[in-house]
Amino acid sequence: MSEFDESMKHAIEQARLGAAEGGIPIGAALVSGDELLAVGRNRRVQRASPTLHAEIDCLERAGRQPASVYRQATLFTTLSPCYLCTGAVLLYGIPRVVIGENRTYSTSEDLLRSHGVEVVVLDLDECAELMREFIAARPQLWHEDIGNDYQG
Amino acid sequence: MSEFDESMKHAIEQARLGAAEGGIPIGAALVSGDELLAVGRNRRVQRASPTLHAEIDCLERAGRQPASVYRQATLFTTLSPCYLCTGAVLLYGIPRVVIGENRTYSTSEDLLRSHGVEVVVLDLDECAELMREFIAARPQLWHEDIGNDYQG
Repeated sequence: MSEFDESMKHAIEQARLGAAEGGIPIGAALVSGDELLAVGRNRRVQRASPTLHAEIDCLERAGRQPASVYRQATLFTTLSPCYLCTGAVLLYGIPRVVIGENRTYSTSEDLLRSHGVEVVVLDLDECAELMREFIAARPQLWHEDIGNDYQG
Repeated sequence: MSEFDESMKHAIEQARLGAAEGGIPIGAALVSGDELLAVGRNRRVQRASPTLHAEIDCLERAGRQPASVYRQATLFTTLSPCYLCTGAVLLYGIPRVVIGENRTYSTSEDLLRSHGVEVVVLDLDECAELMREFIAARPQLWHEDIGNDYQG
């Protein structure tokens, strides 16, 4: 058990819910102290959206917040964030990102760190397995989500 | 007249529409060759959204696209993009960003350039004036949009 397990559990629940909806199994949670501000999940499929990555969906559901809220928050995500979601963290000055796993994908942890963001990688088999199964089943959808061409 | 004026006009129209709605006057357009793929505008106020910056709204309205579309596109925006919108450009490999003005705000043009993105700044008085009027009238809303604390 780590201090992050309880909040990451919410993110993983969102990832599983996304998978059950036929979506991309990535989930997120925004937490401040002991308070869960919002959860979210990748809704590319569900909302035909190119920008509702899990972290963006989560921030969206948290609604308009003053800067002070973000500055005390931690963003949990089951998968290492892409540049879009990293950009959201930098815009709002979120000081800590806790990542379920980065074996499947990792692009911008160094960018986060270079701006003083604390990056914690839990390296959870459960998160990696969700992505492994998903990518094996739907490689084209995965590549679309990260802006890659896919030659199947 | 520059080759970019016609597309920037669409972005400025969106910014003016946003202002008329009581929103933040920033607009965007996504263009590929001669084709206008989508327009968008900051809808923080209109949609109570912390993530619908003009560029994100524009990408959202363009819908799910294959990587090849983004790789040939130019993103027009009336104001220099924040980290969130810069992250979207990097995620999708959009090769060029045309900016109306960067006098009001500029955070991540160097980050774009460091990833090989062509950045064109038109330095248009019209775009700067829209922001000047808006920030004078609603400073708190502006600071919320860029993740700053505001002590009025």
